Amino acid sequence: MNTANELPISIKMQAADNVAIVANAGGLKTGTVLDDGTRLLDDVPLGHKVALVDIAAGGPVMRYAEVIGYALEDIPRGRWINEDRVRMPAARALSELSTDPRPAPEMPPLEGYTFEGYRNADGTVGTKNVLALSTSVQCVAGVTDHVVRRIKAELLPRYPNVDDVVALNHTYGCGVAINAPAAIVPIRTLQNIARNPNFGGEVMVIGLGCEKLLPTRLIPEEQVLRLGENVAAGAEVPPSPILSLQDEAFTGFGQMIDGILKLAEYHLEKLNRRRRETCPASELVIGMQCGGSDAFSGVTANPALGFAADLIVRAGGTVMFSEVTEVRDAIHLLTARARDSDVAWALVEQMDWYDNYLSQGQVDRSANTSPGNKKGGLSNIVEKALGSIVKSGSSPIVDVVGPGERIRKRGLNFAATPASDFICGTLQLAAGMNLQVFTTGRGTPYGLSMAPVIKVSTNKTLSQRWHDLIDLDAGRIATGEATIEDVGWELFRLILEVASGREQVAADRLGLHNDLVLFNPAPVT
Amino acid sequence: MNTANELPISIKMQAADNVAIVANAGGLKTGTVLDDGTRLLDDVPLGHKVALVDIAAGGPVMRYAEVIGYALEDIPRGRWINEDRVRMPAARALSELSTDPRPAPEMPPLEGYTFEGYRNADGTVGTKNVLALSTSVQCVAGVTDHVVRRIKAELLPRYPNVDDVVALNHTYGCGVAINAPAAIVPIRTLQNIARNPNFGGEVMVIGLGCEKLLPTRLIPEEQVLRLGENVAAGAEVPPSPILSLQDEAFTGFGQMIDGILKLAEYHLEKLNRRRRETCPASELVIGMQCGGSDAFSGVTANPALGFAADLIVRAGGTVMFSEVTEVRDAIHLLTARARDSDVAWALVEQMDWYDNYLSQGQVDRSANTSPGNKKGGLSNIVEKALGSIVKSGSSPIVDVVGPGERIRKRGLNFAATPASDFICGTLQLAAGMNLQVFTTGRGTPYGLSMAPVIKVSTNKTLSQRWHDLIDLDAGRIATGEATIEDVGWELFRLILEVASGREQVAADRLGLHNDLVLFNPAPVT
Ligand SMILES: [Ca+2]
Ligand SMILES: [Ca+2]
Ligand SMILES: [Ca+2]
Ligand SMILES: [Ca+2]
Ligand SMILES: [Ca+2]
Repeated sequence: MNTANELPISIKMQAADNVAIVANAGGLKTGTVLDDGTRLLDDVPLGHKVALVDIAAGGPVMRYAEVIGYALEDIPRGRWINEDRVRMPAARALSELSTDPRPAPEMPPLEGYTFEGYRNADGTVGTKNVLALSTSVQCVAGVTDHVVRRIKAELLPRYPNVDDVVALNHTYGCGVAINAPAAIVPIRTLQNIARNPNFGGEVMVIGLGCEKLLPTRLIPEEQVLRLGENVAAGAEVPPSPILSLQDEAFTGFGQMIDGILKLAEYHLEKLNRRRRETCPASELVIGMQCGGSDAFSGVTANPALGFAADLIVRAGGTVMFSEVTEVRDAIHLLTARARDSDVAWALVEQMDWYDNYLSQGQVDRSANTSPGNKKGGLSNIVEKALGSIVKSGSSPIVDVVGPGERIRKRGLNFAATPASDFICGTLQLAAGMNLQVFTTGRGTPYGLSMAPVIKVSTNKTLSQRWHDLIDLDAGRIATGEATIEDVGWELFRLILEVASGREQVAADRLGLHNDLVLFNPAPVT
Repeated sequence: MNTANELPISIKMQAADNVAIVANAGGLKTGTVLDDGTRLLDDVPLGHKVALVDIAAGGPVMRYAEVIGYALEDIPRGRWINEDRVRMPAARALSELSTDPRPAPEMPPLEGYTFEGYRNADGTVGTKNVLALSTSVQCVAGVTDHVVRRIKAELLPRYPNVDDVVALNHTYGCGVAINAPAAIVPIRTLQNIARNPNFGGEVMVIGLGCEKLLPTRLIPEEQVLRLGENVAAGAEVPPSPILSLQDEAFTGFGQMIDGILKLAEYHLEKLNRRRRETCPASELVIGMQCGGSDAFSGVTANPALGFAADLIVRAGGTVMFSEVTEVRDAIHLLTARARDSDVAWALVEQMDWYDNYLSQGQVDRSANTSPGNKKGGLSNIVEKALGSIVKSGSSPIVDVVGPGERIRKRGLNFAATPASDFICGTLQLAAGMNLQVFTTGRGTPYGLSMAPVIKVSTNKTLSQRWHDLIDLDAGRIATGEATIEDVGWELFRLILEVASGREQVAADRLGLHNDLVLFNPAPVT
């Protein structure tokens, strides 16, 4: 309960809302007077809604400027709106969706913002300069782990402009149904990850030699073309970017490792020539996701991300949001924001594919609001999804890419992925993300070595306790110390600093990095 | 082609066979005379079959003492039996199988063989003394990787009887459909891996705090009971074996790590008191699998494994073979070897489950013999499967366990797993394996840190080229330098040496270890 020296804090998300959320850790007592003069008629728990105006029976309950339900009785100003007082609209069936979108008008352009990035031959811009050892099969993971340690210790010190060396280990490549229809997902994911802007087109592939996934499929086309051009121009013949452990040239483990070290040196030499240069903010490709959410995810951190997302889009940049199961129940709001009906249909198709995928595994997608969600104040699945999609801001959705596909258009994209933090991160890397923003309420030590991850805390308790693991505290929005706009601008500026290599994120500072996790909807064999 | 100074080599697997396999690297020329006096009427390629007697049209072609097809024409002694000359029996449909088994009579017991193992409170015996950091969710992997490096550097030197520290990282625990029917597979796998005999019942669990998979589910029941007994006996109250990163006791990353180090020290202290003692060979629990097979897998290495498997079973030990997709097409031979009709039915059920799993992903299980298989001399899927199941030897199959289940009976078991090396290895660890034997023809640097892996090469070329990666060369069977029995006995003795810690396998010497890969037939979310 709020103590004498704690001011009552309530949060209204949008001007059109007729409810606010109580943000005090202990909730607020009957009789408390909010900023706008509303006097509470009930004790209202943390994260729960209170009516800011009289709502007549049958009238809409508005949050995020959306109808999240209808009053079952007259609800006077100051009343706690618990789930018993509201009739919840069912999440709309895909077949009932309008695909006649009404996106918001374009926002005014934002000019003059830049970062120091690595320009690539294919037009993309990296925020890091990383040597990637792509792998065509899981069999080589023990060897790549070994050799990455050696490259870091023995070679990297001689190439000071290269930030890191990363083995793109995964669990695909053999023992899988490689001709199954759904195998396209993990395969294109690996192909597109190799094209991530942070690898500078200098990917090398470590294969075994008898795997089902041919290593040649993992070399970026641009890299092959450039090799050809070099040869045509009479330059030194470059080494093949593919090294197979079963190659008869290698007698014993030592020679294998020597071969990899030599190939790594060739690519390190080339990467070491990369230099940061001033690039417009339009070259940002930002992935947004959340993990370990709490009642404040949709109130503090995600809205701040949405504000920053709009800034990036206004600057001409690219933002993707993802996590199909988190947005599924507010899909009618996304189709309405699609730039045109093709995009709206593409959204519906991704939802439909995932519904089928889940039902094949006998999973009921509608069992989504947990008792914990309701206890936290989320009345229904639509309200929960609203708190998730708010991180996409308010721009029109210009395109949709499937799992493992690469982003094609600047602006706000929906990149369809599972919500699993690691699978989402892997698929956003494949989509071409050069920096990720990750919101967390409960806290997770998530990190990627392939792209910087800015971790934003939804509440102050976490950012204080995990002071060295969290990069930005959006909890100040709940305490009234900062507005959504303040934190949104702070995040935008932090993105530019991190993308420029001037600021290091917590996960990189501590060396906390997760492996890739592929999305493989096809069987293993 | 065999040169003047190379003797012709042909291999007949069983006395009942009427064909042999050519083992010379270049095949054998027309006119060559084999050991038994057979004169070749055709050029016969490496790995292909030659008739050792006249086979009349319609007569059976016998290999592994099994009918692998029927002659389509009169096949005279010395003729190359290519696929055009044989009508292949279709692999039997599951519905046509007899479940009236006729297992071989029990073999005479083998006495007096022992190894030096670690006896556990639950009656199992370890071959290594390993501190395992089990994990309830993938979110903690970056932290466990970090802390394992620190434990190895700072603590392990003080506990000389502890062999290793291993993080049981995986990609399960959250972002998964944890209530889907098939979720039982990954969950019981993690539960049972924690009970692996090599961890001595001293598993600690690193969790996050908001994951779907509760860390309490991963503590072995025996360990919980023992904790309770200790407390009842007035002993010091032991620390909880579970540590969650979100625990409010930890302010910042440093305290988190300190907490884990302290808990690790408690368990290291207990593990350090373990001592090897002489145990009968009946305490062995050996997993058999193959990966990167070639034409000689079924001719050299797998038969030697089969011989060793029979020795272990005769000594009262436990052997499991696995890899459903590799045995599927010879399932009628396995049901015939089942100890009773319950076991035969259990085999059929596992095949049926996997058929359905594959067909859900639109994978046709029958597209199994590849052009490469036929080129290598494997005429059909039954012959291919015969080469795989030969590593199970000839004992009755006493029991069948599903993916992730723990072995219940001594003797020869079928532990149903996918063929994927890493998934099979993970599931065999969960089944209770204390040592694995792995055959490879093409070569793979496979290794596990949880249990020793003996890698057996199917051919001499590989064992010579990968002299420091292969533990035993079964290729000498093809060259006539050793018999199947010779190599089988060598392997049996090597198993006892490795299980005793007196001999180190190549993967452990080089530190080449693969991560666990869980089998999750359920959707991710
Ligand atoms: Ca997520
Ligand atoms: Ca900072
Ligand atoms: Ca790893
Ligand atoms: Ca295998
Ligand atoms: Ca040796």
